[in-house]
Amino acid sequence: MSEPTKIFLPEKDAPTHWYNLNADLGALGVDVPPPLHPGTGQPVGPEDLAPLFPMELIKQEVGGERYVEIPEEVRQVYRLWRPTPLYRAHRWEKALGTPAKIFYKYEGVSPSGSHKPNTSVPQAYYNAQEGTKRITTETGAGQWGSALSFACQMFDIACKVYMVKVSFQQKPYRRALMETWGASVVPSPSDQTAAGRAILAKQPESTGSLGIAISEAVEEAAQRDDTKYALGSVLNHVLMHQTVIGQEVIRQLEMAGADWPDVLVGCTGGGSNFAGFIYPFLAEDVDGRHAKPRIVAVEPAASPSLTRGRYAYDFGDTGQMTPLMKMHTLGHDFIPAPIHAGGLRYHGMSPQVSALVEAGLVEAKSTTQMPMFDACMGFVRSEGILPAPEAGHAVWGALQEALACKESGEARTVVFNLCGHGHFDLSAYDAYLGGQLEDYEYPEAAIAESLAALPHVG
Amino acid sequence: MSEPTKIFLPEKDAPTHWYNLNADLGALGVDVPPPLHPGTGQPVGPEDLAPLFPMELIKQEVGGERYVEIPEEVRQVYRLWRPTPLYRAHRWEKALGTPAKIFYKYEGVSPSGSHKPNTSVPQAYYNAQEGTKRITTETGAGQWGSALSFACQMFDIACKVYMVKVSFQQKPYRRALMETWGASVVPSPSDQTAAGRAILAKQPESTGSLGIAISEAVEEAAQRDDTKYALGSVLNHVLMHQTVIGQEVIRQLEMAGADWPDVLVGCTGGGSNFAGFIYPFLAEDVDGRHAKPRIVAVEPAASPSLTRGRYAYDFGDTGQMTPLMKMHTLGHDFIPAPIHAGGLRYHGMSPQVSALVEAGLVEAKSTTQMPMFDACMGFVRSEGILPAPEAGHAVWGALQEALACKESGEARTVVFNLCGHGHFDLSAYDAYLGGQLEDYEYPEAAIAESLAALPHVG
Repeated sequence: MSEPTKIFLPEKDAPTHWYNLNADLGALGVDVPPPLHPGTGQPVGPEDLAPLFPMELIKQEVGGERYVEIPEEVRQVYRLWRPTPLYRAHRWEKALGTPAKIFYKYEGVSPSGSHKPNTSVPQAYYNAQEGTKRITTETGAGQWGSALSFACQMFDIACKVYMVKVSFQQKPYRRALMETWGASVVPSPSDQTAAGRAILAKQPESTGSLGIAISEAVEEAAQRDDTKYALGSVLNHVLMHQTVIGQEVIRQLEMAGADWPDVLVGCTGGGSNFAGFIYPFLAEDVDGRHAKPRIVAVEPAASPSLTRGRYAYDFGDTGQMTPLMKMHTLGHDFIPAPIHAGGLRYHGMSPQVSALVEAGLVEAKSTTQMPMFDACMGFVRSEGILPAPEAGHAVWGALQEALACKESGEARTVVFNLCGHGHFDLSAYDAYLGGQLEDYEYPEAAIAESLAALPHVG
Repeated sequence: MSEPTKIFLPEKDAPTHWYNLNADLGALGVDVPPPLHPGTGQPVGPEDLAPLFPMELIKQEVGGERYVEIPEEVRQVYRLWRPTPLYRAHRWEKALGTPAKIFYKYEGVSPSGSHKPNTSVPQAYYNAQEGTKRITTETGAGQWGSALSFACQMFDIACKVYMVKVSFQQKPYRRALMETWGASVVPSPSDQTAAGRAILAKQPESTGSLGIAISEAVEEAAQRDDTKYALGSVLNHVLMHQTVIGQEVIRQLEMAGADWPDVLVGCTGGGSNFAGFIYPFLAEDVDGRHAKPRIVAVEPAASPSLTRGRYAYDFGDTGQMTPLMKMHTLGHDFIPAPIHAGGLRYHGMSPQVSALVEAGLVEAKSTTQMPMFDACMGFVRSEGILPAPEAGHAVWGALQEALACKESGEARTVVFNLCGHGHFDLSAYDAYLGGQLEDYEYPEAAIAESLAALPHVG
């Protein structure tokens, strides 16, 4: 073996700061237009966000400090699973017969099995610091809800999760995981909020949606002084917290004596694991230490905001309660097909990641879920680790790079982010193996229809 | 922090050999009587086992070589998850207010989520070396079946798993995991073996048992030249393969600058994770480097072979097809209550571990599942990691030690083996949280009845 299979970064070498892309937007030639208040059309200010978020997170959202120190209390919790391992995919390379050198960062070792606790922990911490007693949030399949439940437990904050009713009914184990960490989980729409009651009055049998659940969580947070709201992706501060991923990768590649990567691959839903993985590589470019690698974002064809969406101002939620954000969007009314990568079923994209694509710094690709699962099967049968369907999109993207290397004979270094394990997604693998998996192509007509309803702003 | 939270052993320092307790039985003053042929009453020889196991494993079963080299091909697969991390439970210690220093070895990072691949991988490897094309086995809840499926995939061997029918029906995700690794899974009793057909003729609605599934797997292996059988615990070679666990722990404690442990705690079903954890500490004692710590085995009160069984010759299976083994047994007809720690629902115990208990080198304790889950809740809410219910018995045992330290004010070093994660066991946590968990005390009458049917041998 020229290089080890797993590269573990010692705790003492773990990142001490998050990297804030806001500081380097100018150097990168990237413009991220500000979020706008839907009523006034003016940029939203801190006071607009104060009912929902603690002030420190609002500062991080808009701040320009290049490196933000990670509080020691947060680092103590991070140490339960961080630094996460970087793997060299020796066995997969061999199975593929590719000269590519493939590395993958594995975020599935966290308590909830994905990268989400990288931000839920600091969000809970800053809330605790500012006296928040309760946090509300929404969850679909449950990844974000369980990560926030875990984090709130660590800082003695009550956590209330509005869980899309159909998932609440179909995924009792995800609910049990959240409750194990002390959260209170209610099926949405519920009778506990005006938003929920309004839906139930019209559709008593509603099985809910992420849009409705957001409305309920935001309403409760806005109305109670002791309660704030937390979001698991899209926003700048959320993406910044994820930059521990990429910083660790860079140090681990150095430890392994690996070449500087030729290409980075990640999956995108709201953009947070992708951003956390790639941003520190952009900083290396800005500082002139290493040229930017090619960077590839992979999204599902069923929810193709970067590859088929419009770069425009739109709402972050179906209920039109959030500020308007300039992003790649399929329209806030767009409801993606029920693909198994539930964490990528979002109509929009983080404004920062959208701006990077617009600036040509990031390429976007998409795949339907059948070839994605094909790629995962090859991966799991070589490497042992079962990817979550979300992470499977990055596996598929890395496979394309590996096959291109096989074709050209080039030994490129490919690094991808495996953002979560698939132990909670075995029903998806079961459907795939049983030939029951539906493939979903680009929903052309539905996208055209929802894009027609975009607000005329900006 | 005086010591880090996670201690990672570099791959270059991973064990290169397994430790074979057979070599030190004399030095330890431990007598392990040989398995007997049920027909002749004579010790079984290699020829009796040859239809079921490859010769190298039979040699390991009876061999006296103190250290057996781990083949490089096996070490390559081990590297996908080994060395596993050792954790210092800083947060749990603080939550408990104990002066104890608690460490835990975490085997849940393996591809199938438990310690089982430590032996399934070498078993598949030696079979492949000797030309085996297919391996059969049985599985109850699915942990062993999935570990063997993974291992067979790594060495291109077909794997057929007879899965207890009630589990096959209730745990489709476990089945899906095995199929993802390429195994063929059939519900047992099946119509594919004489043993299965005989059961179905008498009881068409039979939901199966581990005993029946063993009979089917053994029958198929015995009848086909290209097919062998694999067992996930109990046997000497299986326990030996697990000694990578304890060897790593010793090196990691040294790395952490920790004191030599005062007490080791593990859970016991068939005994393999426990043995693999503690045996290397016995070797340290034999070599005069470190005195033996106190060693505590924790088993479920519902299946209490060590604490309430008889030390006697008995069959390893309900169907009376295996050799007779001298062990702590509840009687081969004993069927444990449906506790959630499915991996500990076994009527017997490894002969080696039984002999260590008889010799006074190991203490045995038991707990019902309610206090065990109580202990797990405290653990998961401090440490984040969700223990499998089997591993939860070790958590409970470590908790008793931590509380004793709190009582006495002593800062003892407690090390336990967390042999698997609970991501596949959320229905158990759900039942616990919902107040639906039944507690099962010692089944006095059932044990007395099954012990009365013990064979009169040895």
